[in-house]
Amino acid sequence: MLEDKEQSRTPLEQLGEFGLITHLTKDFKLVQESSVKGIGDDAAVLDHKNQKTVVSTDLLIEGVHFNLAYMPLKHLGYKSVMVNLSDIYAMNATATQITVSLAVSNRFPLEALEEFYAGVATACKIYGVDLIGGDTTSSTKGMLISVTAIGVAQEEQLVYRNGAKENDLLVVSGDIGGAYLGLQVLERENEVFKVNPQNQPDLDAYSYIVERQLKPEARKDIVELLAKLEVKPTAMIDISDGLSSEILHLCQNSNVGCDLYEDKIPLDPTVIATSEEFKMDSTMIALSGGEDYELLFTIDQKDFPKIKANPNLTVIGHMTEKSMGAQLVTRSGAKMELKAQGWNSF
Amino acid sequence: MLEDKEQSRTPLEQLGEFGLITHLTKDFKLVQESSVKGIGDDAAVLDHKNQKTVVSTDLLIEGVHFNLAYMPLKHLGYKSVMVNLSDIYAMNATATQITVSLAVSNRFPLEALEEFYAGVATACKIYGVDLIGGDTTSSTKGMLISVTAIGVAQEEQLVYRNGAKENDLLVVSGDIGGAYLGLQVLERENEVFKVNPQNQPDLDAYSYIVERQLKPEARKDIVELLAKLEVKPTAMIDISDGLSSEILHLCQNSNVGCDLYEDKIPLDPTVIATSEEFKMDSTMIALSGGEDYELLFTIDQKDFPKIKANPNLTVIGHMTEKSMGAQLVTRSGAKMELKAQGWNSF
Repeated sequence: MLEDKEQSRTPLEQLGEFGLITHLTKDFKLVQESSVKGIGDDAAVLDHKNQKTVVSTDLLIEGVHFNLAYMPLKHLGYKSVMVNLSDIYAMNATATQITVSLAVSNRFPLEALEEFYAGVATACKIYGVDLIGGDTTSSTKGMLISVTAIGVAQEEQLVYRNGAKENDLLVVSGDIGGAYLGLQVLERENEVFKVNPQNQPDLDAYSYIVERQLKPEARKDIVELLAKLEVKPTAMIDISDGLSSEILHLCQNSNVGCDLYEDKIPLDPTVIATSEEFKMDSTMIALSGGEDYELLFTIDQKDFPKIKANPNLTVIGHMTEKSMGAQLVTRSGAKMELKAQGWNSF
Repeated sequence: MLEDKEQSRTPLEQLGEFGLITHLTKDFKLVQESSVKGIGDDAAVLDHKNQKTVVSTDLLIEGVHFNLAYMPLKHLGYKSVMVNLSDIYAMNATATQITVSLAVSNRFPLEALEEFYAGVATACKIYGVDLIGGDTTSSTKGMLISVTAIGVAQEEQLVYRNGAKENDLLVVSGDIGGAYLGLQVLERENEVFKVNPQNQPDLDAYSYIVERQLKPEARKDIVELLAKLEVKPTAMIDISDGLSSEILHLCQNSNVGCDLYEDKIPLDPTVIATSEEFKMDSTMIALSGGEDYELLFTIDQKDFPKIKANPNLTVIGHMTEKSMGAQLVTRSGAKMELKAQGWNSF
């Protein structure tokens, strides 16, 4: 992809490591009051006052986590930030700062990195977080990205994975399965393109799920919504690996079981239609697909009236006694044990 | 190296991603009071109370930053932590937490990763920092490491790069040039080994510089020493890229010039002897070598009596007016402009 475009190409060695960092980050301004010192010293300095600091980090590797054949670099920059902010929101915290480290081989011109950082900048602007550090270096092969996200929360606001109680309701934001199916569509089109580069893919029918894959959003809005509704989840996690795997994390950490109702799982019509087209079971996709970056949480039953009318939130089950295990209650009423079949890079 | 040893080899896919993280980090205990929650949730939670939080991050890539032919994995784990803690100490702060992310190809067995984490654990124990997060994933080629170090400091304690004033003294801890020469020795032995694998290298004469390369120490002790001596540097940076490059950073950030005296640069006898053996100029090695992880700082002249008797600290020059530039004053008294010829990965 990078080689095909007719664009100006500036080799990275022209700038050197310091020149490169300065060039790529010069337009980032600090907006968070808690960012005392950003890029440009040995370390950044933050002032989170009397609040707790929340930290999460993720690696993204070309050929393992993304394919530049169909992932535009600007989207990749944006998504790299989202993946990490999602973990901060899953703590019911406010994301405030990020560091972004990037290693690229010589095949990447400066303009490619500018695209990537444009995506990072858009994410920072929309989500109100500051880029406060990072590292830029060469790699022997491909591109790799390491992002650390930092947030703040009052102690009483934090939600861990271990607070779910028996009879709590299990709630998910948005809908799921789209990101995984979007990837299937993109991979199929990429195979077609390899055979016939003249072919122009028509992705209109898939735009929702393709966007879920290429440009996911971290659910900052859900954290804000819950605060407004005065609902504090008893446990929370973000859906990066698939619903099944995340439910098991909540159950294991909270020492409870769970009944998940198949017919309650929120699926977009595009997910249902595309599942049929790919001859895949939409429930399996929701359970094992991953990369949706929705929030999965449990609430006390007394809070149900506060959330029940909200189109962003769906009750998909309830927590049970530990010995009952984590079960999928199928449309026919049968129970099947949930298994973690989420994505595993190894 | 990894392939030659007769050792038990457990393929990583046997554990999967979650099993792997749990296995590798199970023996890490939290010791810092400020570590509220470590590994095991969406994010770690820290409580730095009324202090400032300091954050730095670095990427280390196999084939770019290290060569596993002569870098034992345990040392690599240790060094990865040191490289990052050094940045925290360069802010005159106390390092408290780290995250360690690791991507490895399938050629690495579990036992190799255990070695790496053993080095991380040793570093955490000696330096009193907690491992609070990270990510472990597969790579398409080789090993790559991303570490984020976090520290705390009272606001009035922090030292930036921009506070050096005209007439301030320029001070360096320890001695420099050793790490670079240690690398030269290791690379030479590696070439010999390739030609004749039977050859057992005798590195006794080089043990100091080889250790400087393989097992550097971040100068936590210098930060503590300065506090004890009641000396607050006016500016500080750590020496990762070479003395010359770091001096230029201080000069540029502080808007001053500098006279660096060649005859004051502290060199270990092994550095002098090995420079001669390699027919290299020891001053050039000190200026451009890098990876020493010593601290370079400026102090007000009034503080000179407090540091002058200390064997860990050497005054190597003084800051001048900006228009004078950054100059090396040679043994013969001639002045040469300092140029940044430090290491550049591109």
